[in-house]
Amino acid sequence: LVDYQQILAEIEAEVQPLLGKGRVADYIPPLAEVDPGRFGMAVRLVDGTDFCVGEADNAFSIQSVSKAFRLAAAARTHGEAIWKRVGREPSGTSFNSLIQLEEEKGIPRNPMINAGALVVMDALLEGGRPDPGMEFIEKCLGGQPVDWDRFVASAECETAHRNRALAHLIKSFGNLTGHPDEVVEAHCRESAVTLSCRDLCRAAMFMATAGVTEEGVRVCSARQVKRLNAVLLISGVYDEAGDYAYRVGLPAKSGVGGGVLAVMPGVFTACVWSPGLNQKGNSLAGTKALELLTTKSGVSVF
Amino acid sequence: LVDYQQILAEIEAEVQPLLGKGRVADYIPPLAEVDPGRFGMAVRLVDGTDFCVGEADNAFSIQSVSKAFRLAAAARTHGEAIWKRVGREPSGTSFNSLIQLEEEKGIPRNPMINAGALVVMDALLEGGRPDPGMEFIEKCLGGQPVDWDRFVASAECETAHRNRALAHLIKSFGNLTGHPDEVVEAHCRESAVTLSCRDLCRAAMFMATAGVTEEGVRVCSARQVKRLNAVLLISGVYDEAGDYAYRVGLPAKSGVGGGVLAVMPGVFTACVWSPGLNQKGNSLAGTKALELLTTKSGVSVF
Amino acid sequence: LVDYQQILAEIEAEVQPLLGKGRVADYIPPLAEVDPGRFGMAVRLVDGTDFCVGEADNAFSIQSVSKAFRLAAAARTHGEAIWKRVGREPSGTSFNSLIQLEEEKGIPRNPMINAGALVVMDALLEGGRPDPGMEFIEKCLGGQPVDWDRFVASAECETAHRNRALAHLIKSFGNLTGHPDEVVEAHCRESAVTLSCRDLCRAAMFMATAGVTEEGVRVCSARQVKRLNAVLLISGVYDEAGDYAYRVGLPAKSGVGGGVLAVMPGVFTACVWSPGLNQKGNSLAGTKALELLTTKSGVSVF
Amino acid sequence: LVDYQQILAEIEAEVQPLLGKGRVADYIPPLAEVDPGRFGMAVRLVDGTDFCVGEADNAFSIQSVSKAFRLAAAARTHGEAIWKRVGREPSGTSFNSLIQLEEEKGIPRNPMINAGALVVMDALLEGGRPDPGMEFIEKCLGGQPVDWDRFVASAECETAHRNRALAHLIKSFGNLTGHPDEVVEAHCRESAVTLSCRDLCRAAMFMATAGVTEEGVRVCSARQVKRLNAVLLISGVYDEAGDYAYRVGLPAKSGVGGGVLAVMPGVFTACVWSPGLNQKGNSLAGTKALELLTTKSGVSVF
Repeated sequence: LVDYQQILAEIEAEVQPLLGKGRVADYIPPLAEVDPGRFGMAVRLVDGTDFCVGEADNAFSIQSVSKAFRLAAAARTHGEAIWKRVGREPSGTSFNSLIQLEEEKGIPRNPMINAGALVVMDALLEGGRPDPGMEFIEKCLGGQPVDWDRFVASAECETAHRNRALAHLIKSFGNLTGHPDEVVEAHCRESAVTLSCRDLCRAAMFMATAGVTEEGVRVCSARQVKRLNAVLLISGVYDEAGDYAYRVGLPAKSGVGGGVLAVMPGVFTACVWSPGLNQKGNSLAGTKALELLTTKSGVSVF
Repeated sequence: LVDYQQILAEIEAEVQPLLGKGRVADYIPPLAEVDPGRFGMAVRLVDGTDFCVGEADNAFSIQSVSKAFRLAAAARTHGEAIWKRVGREPSGTSFNSLIQLEEEKGIPRNPMINAGALVVMDALLEGGRPDPGMEFIEKCLGGQPVDWDRFVASAECETAHRNRALAHLIKSFGNLTGHPDEVVEAHCRESAVTLSCRDLCRAAMFMATAGVTEEGVRVCSARQVKRLNAVLLISGVYDEAGDYAYRVGLPAKSGVGGGVLAVMPGVFTACVWSPGLNQKGNSLAGTKALELLTTKSGVSVF
Repeated sequence: LVDYQQILAEIEAEVQPLLGKGRVADYIPPLAEVDPGRFGMAVRLVDGTDFCVGEADNAFSIQSVSKAFRLAAAARTHGEAIWKRVGREPSGTSFNSLIQLEEEKGIPRNPMINAGALVVMDALLEGGRPDPGMEFIEKCLGGQPVDWDRFVASAECETAHRNRALAHLIKSFGNLTGHPDEVVEAHCRESAVTLSCRDLCRAAMFMATAGVTEEGVRVCSARQVKRLNAVLLISGVYDEAGDYAYRVGLPAKSGVGGGVLAVMPGVFTACVWSPGLNQKGNSLAGTKALELLTTKSGVSVF
Repeated sequence: LVDYQQILAEIEAEVQPLLGKGRVADYIPPLAEVDPGRFGMAVRLVDGTDFCVGEADNAFSIQSVSKAFRLAAAARTHGEAIWKRVGREPSGTSFNSLIQLEEEKGIPRNPMINAGALVVMDALLEGGRPDPGMEFIEKCLGGQPVDWDRFVASAECETAHRNRALAHLIKSFGNLTGHPDEVVEAHCRESAVTLSCRDLCRAAMFMATAGVTEEGVRVCSARQVKRLNAVLLISGVYDEAGDYAYRVGLPAKSGVGGGVLAVMPGVFTACVWSPGLNQKGNSLAGTKALELLTTKSGVSVF
């Protein structure tokens, strides 16, 4: 039997040398002020038991981790049709690149890069609700309301020239229904949602249970979840997919706030937070922590 | 002695099979309605003599031909400093590509592609005048006011998602002072200026006279004009520079309205208009007409 | 309990409309003559039980399926050091592209594209044996000798200008020890190995058993196998990785001969063969067959 | 009247601070040993008068300067048909890039990059003579034999992995008739031709005289020469075409041996040699010298 509490304790000890290393996301001023040396981690089994270490209850800016929920929400409402507007191949280049978008005529490579996430947001906004991704997260949490940081959202929106460039470019190819500004603003709000490692593990539980929340509500079909996990493994950690698969071996989604959510289907969800980022934009200590989790537990999808 | 009137008559006859071929620029609705079979051409010697054929006095939408004047205006006000913000190498790819812009960190490859023209416009707007490029054209015409087509400008602005994408991307790299929307709008107004072949030849005369207008006003130094002509030869006809140099052998600037302005330093300016475009976005009959002009006259820079 | 024999029978029926569709690899003349309508499939559980349908015992040209064994062999001999010479990120573009190789200074993106496979072969050849990958396959088969098709190898070598270009380019970056011609020739021989679906399932069994052959010989460590499977999932099917993960959900390696090998760690190996290829160069019917296998069995890594 | 001898004297004085700066081509060992501080320059008027300064009579390795003669030779024998096999647009990227070659299906962007020069050599070799480009240079010199440096040619051939890669890649696209090795070897021999600035000015005189050598032999038509000069201006100095046009304003061809040949049609040929190269691979002092020549003389094509 795997002793997750013991493993988490070992992980916390072993990542100490990495804490404070890496860079925080400096393009969003409020995030630039977070101490890169902080660390928290949670693992939650499919039976609802959870194990925590460090600041696992500290709410942080989930940033791109929201894209996993956003895609799940779109799978619910749009089904396979969403794939007419966004691809599902790995990006291969920097996460906010316009190059592929142009070469591929406005169809973003996958829903986890910014361009693709904007298209998915645009699709969700067709439903007429202002923050559809946020509502989906609340549903996954059994109705618990989630909050977003106005300061972070506003700071991100002000400097979102590149996201606006992406949205206008997608619009120029006819792949955006809404106004670029509105889509970008909704994107910034949702990215600014704050949740703790422990809560993210709970919200993501449907990804490990073939679609059912802890409250027993089916939010996705088993097939949709299988496919969501496949998309995460291929594209959830920017252009570090290969290294993550190799070292960690779990579907995962990271954010520039330093959070990483990972899923072992049928077994657990895991979430780690440490704001110092590596060169690919993924949490430096968080990546190591997940590698240690699968190495020590012997549990991975491979 | 070269008989330009005879040459123009022969050119008009020889381009007949090409008239109506090619495509008009369909992304700007008012331009899409122009009959692609129209044709006009003018040659103006440095002594002020001009020779015309066809609809040489019909005012058309000069579109990107304005970029040549815009750069000359910036050379006046900013001198060599403008080259810190824009390059002068050939683009090699499609004229509105974002790819190079991203790879080269927001420094557009040259001032004749849209990205570069937006940067030059941004520099000119620092002077506080609403339409600085237009004012420069008026100065080149000895003070004759120029007009712009509100309908065309407005149509272009409405669909200018790609130009907005470019402006936001440049802004994200810190290479735009103004607001992306304002720069794009000024760009659209100036592109919508209407002038005839005969008038464009006159306005561009300073490019053939080392910087002096027909009224004797120096608008650029000899060195600036030499360099403007070099930039035009390298980048004035989108990614058809090599073919133009090979077939025509003159510095030239084309626009999607079907106009092409060419310069033989010390000898003449020439302007041709025919709205049907080839695959590179240059006037199909206009390109052939210029090739015939240099072949028949034996006059080219090479 | 999953009835694999029943599932295979259903699969064979359901892929009938796809047989004969797709194109055979026409750049290797002997392969171009194979009937694209042929089909065989095998599934082998980790207890040694196997299930077959169609021409599961027909030996075909394994082509790039050999790259999975080649990498495993290099993991044995070179350990983690192999990753100094080859990356493990998805390729994102066509499988024999020189572009990434040049941009990334002679370090191929991953060991499953041709450039990477040539580097791995070069590393294996350092051991002084003429066909080290083939020897490894024999070891995986409990010592059973494997054969290669001289006609196919010779035909491939004659037209291998692109592979020679890759090898010379890698050499120019200092990442090839041997002579380009010798590395390419060894590559062509190994690609020309012929095996049946049933035998490939048996040879690959160590990938499902954490490194141990059916004869009980450990050929790789558990960690190496986990990592090999990660590499296959990320890069085993050229630039169709995302679609494979989404639809099939298993690590897999395909070849232009029409074979595809897939692994469900701890459960089974599967192999399908049908020579008609889709646009990405993967077996058309084979891809569908694997999708049906995971859908019908409910077994995948996600 | 322009006093070229005085201008050359001024140039020699003004480039002194640049001598010894820059890097010599280190990938060809014998060239790596040349003192980067050497300098020579010649200007030859179309009436045969020449002006020299520094080591204008020192024979150096002409390297890629040979490509200008090679293209002229192919224009003679193949006429316009050569353009079916090679383009004439600027390259935009590094001079030996495989990227464009792959994207453009084996048709090199222009005859001045290595890929294009190999295709032109392949075309010339169809005539059955071992060194057709060298023979053309001899013809341009009125029959004076030219020599090539065996040591340089052999050193270049040994390390020519990238050129071999190019040749194999072109072959894979069906755009090479000969064997890649033979084409590369002929290329290396011709690149190793040694000539002085004074002799290169004489050999290139046909480029300034619409096709006639000093001995009165027509080696190209006027139209071919006009077009050759256009190709040189667009692509003769690797990816520094725009800067050269802007600063120098003459068609020119450079080589990594430090030579640069320039042409002012109807007026003069000029040649400068200084082995220290700038970052684009063009002679650092040589480029400055040519800029000073056109600035001081007021003579350029623009």
